[in-house]
Amino acid sequence: MTAVAGEAKHARRRAGRPPQALLSSSRITRAALKLVGQDGYKGLTMAALAKSLNVAPSALYNHVRSKQDVLLLVEDHLMGRVDVSAFGTRPWAEAVRVWAHSYRDVFAGHLPLIPVIALLPVTNAPATITMYEAVTRGFLDAGWPPETVIDAVVALESFIYGSAYDANAPADIFDAGDMAPAAPSFSAAVARRGGGAAVRGRTGGDPADAPEPAVQARNDADAAFTLGLNALVAGLAATREAKMPPFGTNATV
Amino acid sequence: MTAVAGEAKHARRRAGRPPQALLSSSRITRAALKLVGQDGYKGLTMAALAKSLNVAPSALYNHVRSKQDVLLLVEDHLMGRVDVSAFGTRPWAEAVRVWAHSYRDVFAGHLPLIPVIALLPVTNAPATITMYEAVTRGFLDAGWPPETVIDAVVALESFIYGSAYDANAPADIFDAGDMAPAAPSFSAAVARRGGGAAVRGRTGGDPADAPEPAVQARNDADAAFTLGLNALVAGLAATREAKMPPFGTNATV
Repeated sequence: MTAVAGEAKHARRRAGRPPQALLSSSRITRAALKLVGQDGYKGLTMAALAKSLNVAPSALYNHVRSKQDVLLLVEDHLMGRVDVSAFGTRPWAEAVRVWAHSYRDVFAGHLPLIPVIALLPVTNAPATITMYEAVTRGFLDAGWPPETVIDAVVALESFIYGSAYDANAPADIFDAGDMAPAAPSFSAAVARRGGGAAVRGRTGGDPADAPEPAVQARNDADAAFTLGLNALVAGLAATREAKMPPFGTNATV
Repeated sequence: MTAVAGEAKHARRRAGRPPQALLSSSRITRAALKLVGQDGYKGLTMAALAKSLNVAPSALYNHVRSKQDVLLLVEDHLMGRVDVSAFGTRPWAEAVRVWAHSYRDVFAGHLPLIPVIALLPVTNAPATITMYEAVTRGFLDAGWPPETVIDAVVALESFIYGSAYDANAPADIFDAGDMAPAAPSFSAAVARRGGGAAVRGRTGGDPADAPEPAVQARNDADAAFTLGLNALVAGLAATREAKMPPFGTNATV
């Protein structure tokens, strides 16, 4: 670099904000999410992140020590968007449903992060820990025994993560094609899914009656999610009741 | 290439088996699974697959037209290992549990393929279609209305895929670390998970009483899976009963 160029650069820097101020946790988080959205999780490297932020890697490392730190920022950003407001204000089953719908929708928009976040310790992720605290308190307030709360929450999360994938499934995911005659029960059930919208679309009924494939796929995913969530919540509630000491035991003994 | 080198290569080929015979669907499948196991899904390219099979890409393309074909082979291999034998021989709830345990275990060993297979159409995957046919028949035989079978199966699969991730979760996934005091209910529930094995391990009880972290993590995952699966199966059974026409309706009208 010549002295002149160096001076010019220095002058430009002094005219704007100091370079450190260009970076912030929220800018790093947004850039990381954008990279994952473009190229999947493999696109999220410290080098690519620095480049997309238009800073030197050393500047990025002044804010985050490692890719692990970036992942915690991303996890915390997403978990902070999950709605836990119904815990403490609504009945348990309804609060779980509000939380689960919100949780699924957040991750349905960020599929490549599920394999990472499903296995990422919550350590040093304050918004994530805050979410789990609110959920745990909601379960305890509803009478769940403390030793079972985490298993129940994990069971719900497993269903939620899997459902986030399904929310992105293509409309033809269960199309057996030429092999349909070899799987008659399955093919008939697929055709009748969702009250037969697929049947109408395929068998020559008025195509205007059939929704667009993408809309039908999302309708199917929503139906499966609602069916499974209601079943899981009802089944867990029955489990909780079986584990709870019956009310009034002390009074009657 | 000189004429001599060309003749020598030709002679070597004639001395062994013809090059085409070196490849088979099962060899391609095994090599693809090995690549994914080593490098994750991003490691599965046609070039890397050809290299790992020690053949020219053109030879590989003689067997599979595209990476999509390879994925179908892999999907079919994995789905073919899922145990559907209890459908048709055991009661519905028990058959679902056998199938779900087997399905989770197959995918817990192949996590990088979940995001792919969860979104991959079943078209041209005979073993996959055969699995779905057996499951669908099991549901229909148990009285499920055809239009609801696929939603119920998808709900179970969503839970199974998410549980396959959790089966690989580290033992400290819910360790709030320094932030534990800010999340007292959550931290206490985590410590009491699984009857308090973590408490024993952490609070100075005989460490010999606490299982190894990896064993404890797997125990926790199994407990959450069993709790959730039983709840989901019970909840789905209640849904099915609500949807079934009551027995004897025709006789009494």
